[in-house]
Amino acid sequence: MSSTSTLPTASPLADRYGPGALDDRPVDLAPLTEAIDGILRHRTVRSYLPDPLDDAVLPTLVAAAQSAPTSSNMQFWSVVAVTDPDRKDRLAALAGGQDHVRQAPLLLVWVADLARARAIGAAHGTPLAGTDHLDSTVVAFVDAALAAQNAVVAAESLGLGTVYIGALRHHPEEVAAELGLPPGTVAVVGLVVGHPDPAGGERVKPRLPQGAVLHRETYDLDAQAPHVDAYEDVIAPFYRDEGLSESWRRRVVDRLAVPGTQRGHAHLHSALAARGLCRPADRLTSAPTHRRTAP
Amino acid sequence: MSSTSTLPTASPLADRYGPGALDDRPVDLAPLTEAIDGILRHRTVRSYLPDPLDDAVLPTLVAAAQSAPTSSNMQFWSVVAVTDPDRKDRLAALAGGQDHVRQAPLLLVWVADLARARAIGAAHGTPLAGTDHLDSTVVAFVDAALAAQNAVVAAESLGLGTVYIGALRHHPEEVAAELGLPPGTVAVVGLVVGHPDPAGGERVKPRLPQGAVLHRETYDLDAQAPHVDAYEDVIAPFYRDEGLSESWRRRVVDRLAVPGTQRGHAHLHSALAARGLCRPADRLTSAPTHRRTAP
Repeated sequence: MSSTSTLPTASPLADRYGPGALDDRPVDLAPLTEAIDGILRHRTVRSYLPDPLDDAVLPTLVAAAQSAPTSSNMQFWSVVAVTDPDRKDRLAALAGGQDHVRQAPLLLVWVADLARARAIGAAHGTPLAGTDHLDSTVVAFVDAALAAQNAVVAAESLGLGTVYIGALRHHPEEVAAELGLPPGTVAVVGLVVGHPDPAGGERVKPRLPQGAVLHRETYDLDAQAPHVDAYEDVIAPFYRDEGLSESWRRRVVDRLAVPGTQRGHAHLHSALAARGLCRPADRLTSAPTHRRTAP
Repeated sequence: MSSTSTLPTASPLADRYGPGALDDRPVDLAPLTEAIDGILRHRTVRSYLPDPLDDAVLPTLVAAAQSAPTSSNMQFWSVVAVTDPDRKDRLAALAGGQDHVRQAPLLLVWVADLARARAIGAAHGTPLAGTDHLDSTVVAFVDAALAAQNAVVAAESLGLGTVYIGALRHHPEEVAAELGLPPGTVAVVGLVVGHPDPAGGERVKPRLPQGAVLHRETYDLDAQAPHVDAYEDVIAPFYRDEGLSESWRRRVVDRLAVPGTQRGHAHLHSALAARGLCRPADRLTSAPTHRRTAP
């Protein structure tokens, strides 16, 4: 079946939405720019060659990341580049033993960072009460994600492979200790970068039909159902080849029936509070502002 | 001064890090792919022509968005495409009167979406307690952001302009009502897409030097200070041309000295809870799981 080919196909859409997508629900795409073509061909890479990265790669990825939009130019994020094998080893263990973290030459840890702003406020003699509002933490997480995704697109355009490591969030305090993260910062997500091992054979993973995620003018939950149904047939061969349970719906249920904390994940609310993020200030309408007059 | 030029420069780095960046701290970049070159030249566009978008643009942007990584393939996001002028008008008002929302032909609202998964669980007779863990909401926000950023890169590669509208988060309930968002969903960020008005003259905004945001092996807050100092000189001409206060540090202080709620923003904690997100389940170690046996 064409979707199992690891060779580039004439239209990357056939891989992204399944081989029938172009017949049944033709998606009339704009001319594919090189950037769009690369984006559509994204695949998660979990097998890496041990080859190191060229020294120019890291500053290139960071320049791409910094070129992402950032709310009001506040730049509420930082990135820690980890190449030390022992540190990667410990972080791989904290992420539940993900071997590709050890295998690949670079782990980028994207950090939500209110510490830089608070240091600027402290030097100015003005505590920044606004950083206590949950929206500042949300901005930091979102902006870190925008930056990271630019790095992914940039890395893939250079022929490199990537995989995000969300499991770093399951042990926020231990990851912070490992990376020396100060109060006001927390790891949002890791990103492994390296040369894909061709033997890995990772493929483009089909996604839900556009009808399930794209809504016109207003959201319609019921209208998604037939598209979610149709997805079962598209994803089944992919999961079967991976030796996984074939039903996406079943995978959703299995993954989410149990609270994360029962799977050993930290209590994220309290972990974020302990890290000086997500403070409850925005819940208190009558909270004192602690504002001093700025000089 | 060269940084005020609106023409593409030989190296987009001179715009991104200021004209001195290449002399003082040469950043040795990997060969610029078309994708990287486009990413580095990103600029926020706030002036749009009224021209409609080609019909192929929306499915192209959504295909790019769906090609972004998503944690465990859970696809916890949706997007609402708004083109109706009256609805854009009301959403522009909710975003604090941002005229470009009215001006441009398309507003994409990226939605953190646990409702689809919960509907699957309900149909299966299995309440998905895992969606109550804060990490599920974080995954939804992060994955929505990754998707949105792919759409930005794709749109810009097509010659279109974009600007994120984070202010939609300041009134989550009103935005949800406008878009018919069900419980378990909330707007993460809006994205205006349209044809840039050449008269707008928006430029690439310089960012902090890499030394302020890129850390090797471990995070170092003190080491950032000289780079933040250096940024003041780089950003000053940019802000001066925009008629804004010239000091980035001062802008950070001014923006964050006051709690968001004093600026009329909703209490985001309680708004998210009201929308069925960020439930406190992950704080309760002894909470019942409500799990039924999956058939």
